Amino acid sequence: MAVNLQIPSESEIFPVAGVEIGVTEAGIRKANRRDLTVFRIAPGASVAGVFTRNRFCAAPVQVSKAHLALGGPIRALVINTGNANAGTGESGLNIAKDSCAELGKLLGVPAEQVLPFSTGVILEPLPLDRLVAGLPKAIAALGNNEWFNAAHGIMTTDTLPKIYSRRVEIGGKTVTLTGISKGAGMIRPNMATMLSFLATDAGIAQPLLETLARELADQSFNRITIDGDTSTNDSFIVIATGKSGLQVNSVNDADYAALRQAMAEASADLAQKIVRDAEGATKFITVRVEEAGNTEEALKVAYAVAHSPLVKTAFYASDPNLGRILAAIGYAGIDDLDTAKLRLWLNDVLVAKDGGRNPDYREEDGQQVMKQAEILVRIALGRGQIADTVYTCDFSHEYVSINADYRS
Amino acid sequence: MAVNLQIPSESEIFPVAGVEIGVTEAGIRKANRRDLTVFRIAPGASVAGVFTRNRFCAAPVQVSKAHLALGGPIRALVINTGNANAGTGESGLNIAKDSCAELGKLLGVPAEQVLPFSTGVILEPLPLDRLVAGLPKAIAALGNNEWFNAAHGIMTTDTLPKIYSRRVEIGGKTVTLTGISKGAGMIRPNMATMLSFLATDAGIAQPLLETLARELADQSFNRITIDGDTSTNDSFIVIATGKSGLQVNSVNDADYAALRQAMAEASADLAQKIVRDAEGATKFITVRVEEAGNTEEALKVAYAVAHSPLVKTAFYASDPNLGRILAAIGYAGIDDLDTAKLRLWLNDVLVAKDGGRNPDYREEDGQQVMKQAEILVRIALGRGQIADTVYTCDFSHEYVSINADYRS
Repeated sequence: MAVNLQIPSESEIFPVAGVEIGVTEAGIRKANRRDLTVFRIAPGASVAGVFTRNRFCAAPVQVSKAHLALGGPIRALVINTGNANAGTGESGLNIAKDSCAELGKLLGVPAEQVLPFSTGVILEPLPLDRLVAGLPKAIAALGNNEWFNAAHGIMTTDTLPKIYSRRVEIGGKTVTLTGISKGAGMIRPNMATMLSFLATDAGIAQPLLETLARELADQSFNRITIDGDTSTNDSFIVIATGKSGLQVNSVNDADYAALRQAMAEASADLAQKIVRDAEGATKFITVRVEEAGNTEEALKVAYAVAHSPLVKTAFYASDPNLGRILAAIGYAGIDDLDTAKLRLWLNDVLVAKDGGRNPDYREEDGQQVMKQAEILVRIALGRGQIADTVYTCDFSHEYVSINADYRS
Repeated sequence: MAVNLQIPSESEIFPVAGVEIGVTEAGIRKANRRDLTVFRIAPGASVAGVFTRNRFCAAPVQVSKAHLALGGPIRALVINTGNANAGTGESGLNIAKDSCAELGKLLGVPAEQVLPFSTGVILEPLPLDRLVAGLPKAIAALGNNEWFNAAHGIMTTDTLPKIYSRRVEIGGKTVTLTGISKGAGMIRPNMATMLSFLATDAGIAQPLLETLARELADQSFNRITIDGDTSTNDSFIVIATGKSGLQVNSVNDADYAALRQAMAEASADLAQKIVRDAEGATKFITVRVEEAGNTEEALKVAYAVAHSPLVKTAFYASDPNLGRILAAIGYAGIDDLDTAKLRLWLNDVLVAKDGGRNPDYREEDGQQVMKQAEILVRIALGRGQIADTVYTCDFSHEYVSINADYRS
């Protein structure tokens, strides 16, 4: 029951020159399921990644970071579902490295030019033999427009594939941006977790792409929350092949702003699609905080509201329960917050001001907003000029059911 | 469905000399419900309070803090349920002050010697007329051992009354400690929220009592969490009447340590009873973090585990889902955590070490622990000598049902 999650038709998904994808069934955990995806990346591409900050980061995250840190080109990705290779110690690291070596051997590139990604059950050994046995099939399946297949191939308990694709004119060139993401809760019953791969045929110099990838993640994947849990495997990879002929090397280049904007829209969409398919979600909630003194306090308030189980259950119930939102703002950690200056809107309905309920507010107006599938909670703090936004979902019976099911 | 919440029989509840309580039905929100409680405190008693840090703190909290700050004696408390008088602006403040004045008039003490407390619906005006009309009845009901009645009188959506009472010998005197608490989620459908009143007939000098009250709250009410939401009305009041003949004036007094210990046990019990009666709780979870470098990091880890909806739903499901606990530890915010040094136990079962699952761990042993109603999660960080503990509960379908019910 994803919330307004748009899936482009196959004809709306544009290939990215310089990226080939192959997807196959390797039986990592279960049979008859696309669970192994290989990316082959043309020479000359730049690749950058942003990874989970969880201290229990998974073996493939550690290996991907190490390979990227070497500074050499990245020529391939190997992605499996069914097993996260997390909490698996030294042997897990070796398995992640071996999967890179095996794919590298088949593609004729060094192991260090391959990045591994895993998602699925944690604390269990990844069956390397099955993964390796699947690689030739994945390579045989390599094609220019396998993004739809790949969006399915990286799903675990996602209910729908998540794909973004767009063509945009920048600097006289037609630039393509296509990407996929997956993830439904931060960790679904032992499933770990959020992955996203975004490719463009624009060329972006390696140091610039590394900065850009962090900025994109910060404005997209770091602005969503489902249950406040951060997984062991979260990874966001950006690939810039340069095949369109557009090349940017510095933030001062004339075309950088437009390209950055397009990339930001793509990553925001891929991030928000994860929320739209969140475990048990019935509503997509945008929490926008305005008039903050700085970004930190804007985010403190936005996350306090977005994480509050009481606020989230009220959304589920379509209950315009103002007290819960005000209380969450009140405990967000801004010690000198002047509650008399604060205003709160549900969509365009002003519900609170002057430290309490807006006298003109009518419950039926709030109720009307809360019944909708997409809700904007707008909070003005009266402290400054900074605004920021976080995306989340409601908290339903289904969330508890999904997460209280014994791992199966 | 409270978890092992012990209610003393009336014969086990000892009156505290110097404290009289009267409870009545004032019809604040609904008829036929004990909703107004008055404490009369004998001259010479010390009274101290600890209050919510929520910036949207309720009118009675503001008035109680102001009256305590005057430094004069406190001679009475007036406590209503049914309405929290929160988010009510200037008129709410006047109502809280007027309730003190009215009770003061009837008892012959100045308004500033009365502290008001409210719990119930927020953002609605407190009907002062009904409260005032009930005061003479509450005063007529004043008695020496009305604690059981008062424990009921302060309940809102609590399923059971919460009472602690004990007699202890200190310094050759028999000292009584009796207290009550209420609260079920941090904010139950528009209900706000945690109140606790602890009285002793020991005498404790006013400045010492103020310090002690903060310390007690820190080790009891500040060590419990149900859903991470902090209410607008939380208040903890400590009364020391001195009628037992025991008097302590300084932390260096011979009897202080024993008295402090007894008071700490009382407040911990009153706090933990709130968790035992938490909304939808089926399990009582103790999260103990050991070998931390300091208290702050011990609490970061303990709260990350105790707040994680994924951990809490796993407890509800009796699922020894280690990955979720390890992931929560990993994102708790200790940047240099060495996961290889960490150990995790469920009761006495060592489930994780060396950065992954304990090879000797058997799932059925973890399962056995998880089935119980009281579970100890013990985490050793391998960083230092500091330990700290937080108490919480599981996260059930019932929690969502309770909080998704439209306010009624």
